[in-house]
Amino acid sequence: MDRKLAIVLASGGLDSAVTTAIAKQDCDVAMLHMNYGQQTERRELQSFNRLAEFYQAVDTLVVNVEHLAQIGGSSLTDAKKKVRRADLESQDIPNSYVPFRNANILAVATSWAEVIGATRLFVGAVEEDSSGYPDCRRVFYDAFENAIDAGTKPETRIKIITPIIEMGKTAIVLKGAELNVPFELTWSCYQREEKACGICDSCALRLRGFQQAGVEDPLEYLERPVY
Amino acid sequence: MDRKLAIVLASGGLDSAVTTAIAKQDCDVAMLHMNYGQQTERRELQSFNRLAEFYQAVDTLVVNVEHLAQIGGSSLTDAKKKVRRADLESQDIPNSYVPFRNANILAVATSWAEVIGATRLFVGAVEEDSSGYPDCRRVFYDAFENAIDAGTKPETRIKIITPIIEMGKTAIVLKGAELNVPFELTWSCYQREEKACGICDSCALRLRGFQQAGVEDPLEYLERPVY
Repeated sequence: MDRKLAIVLASGGLDSAVTTAIAKQDCDVAMLHMNYGQQTERRELQSFNRLAEFYQAVDTLVVNVEHLAQIGGSSLTDAKKKVRRADLESQDIPNSYVPFRNANILAVATSWAEVIGATRLFVGAVEEDSSGYPDCRRVFYDAFENAIDAGTKPETRIKIITPIIEMGKTAIVLKGAELNVPFELTWSCYQREEKACGICDSCALRLRGFQQAGVEDPLEYLERPVY
Repeated sequence: MDRKLAIVLASGGLDSAVTTAIAKQDCDVAMLHMNYGQQTERRELQSFNRLAEFYQAVDTLVVNVEHLAQIGGSSLTDAKKKVRRADLESQDIPNSYVPFRNANILAVATSWAEVIGATRLFVGAVEEDSSGYPDCRRVFYDAFENAIDAGTKPETRIKIITPIIEMGKTAIVLKGAELNVPFELTWSCYQREEKACGICDSCALRLRGFQQAGVEDPLEYLERPVY
């Protein structure tokens, strides 16, 4: 039976690596990476390329969307704003929020999917651990899927799959371990590119996930707090 | 009373100029132009800038989204595909279709709107004359508006206004004449940049609109068929 073609949105981080592993169980994968001007782009792209090789992506696309940096409004894309130290208890929208970022990524992915004939978009969004980001919730993906149906050719059928959206980071690490995800190829830190800082929101979530899963994180960290 | 701030998506063509004039009746306008690698971008950008000056835009943003050219699939962005001669009777999706183009533009506009505090996105889409483009129909804009509600901050309220979506080109020309739109500053041709070709889909629709409205189109054309 022919395998379906899926596009995986892959930053190069832990979540997108596990999502790619899940997609590969049933689909051939094409992998899409967005350079939206984030401070750690060089390192993320390296991880993306290594993961694409590892998962034998049939096609890759790296898209420069520097207009998101131009528009600003986020510490991820603005070197003048300092990435804040993690506060995992806060329910506020973190200042690393790029407004409506995932919609921009999904729009590109949908355009590409129509051209290459992909019928699935795999997104490694996590609702719980990204509670501040409105565009990481399934209700948003459902709404966007409706927009895809309304805005593409009648014969186009594209589903947005968010296989880890209800998982916590611990469950994601365990799922990754089960699927033999090469954790050493991934990158999560928002702040550094050689060794991970260990203290930004993204490092904190990752480290806590590995710690609670009882799995060793193979990355090197400048600081390795117990969360 | 404070005027609302609107973002107008403006190609520099007739439809977006009339849409800008309508937006200006009630709102201050910020104007957004997308360079998605179309063959006539230089000329369109010139028209955009002249219209932004004419309508005293409080802010402008020109965004390079060349990934849409990278993705391809359209004669607008691919010099190797020839723009076909207009066939106004055809119901097929024209080969100038960039898959899901308007969703890409709306995603950028929404990100910008959240940063500058705009509450309206004005889009000069026309359902009837663009019947082949799935993302020019109001059903798509309604779906995308829902995606905006689901994917932005709780306090964000952004409406997509499509004031000419049910008009034919003739009604658009008449509306533009009523609002004193500077037609001479606009550009519609898909194919040429000095004189309009007069025979591509976009020129044909425009010329027919002016002819049926009994209004003189001030642009120069290489050919000026009666449609």
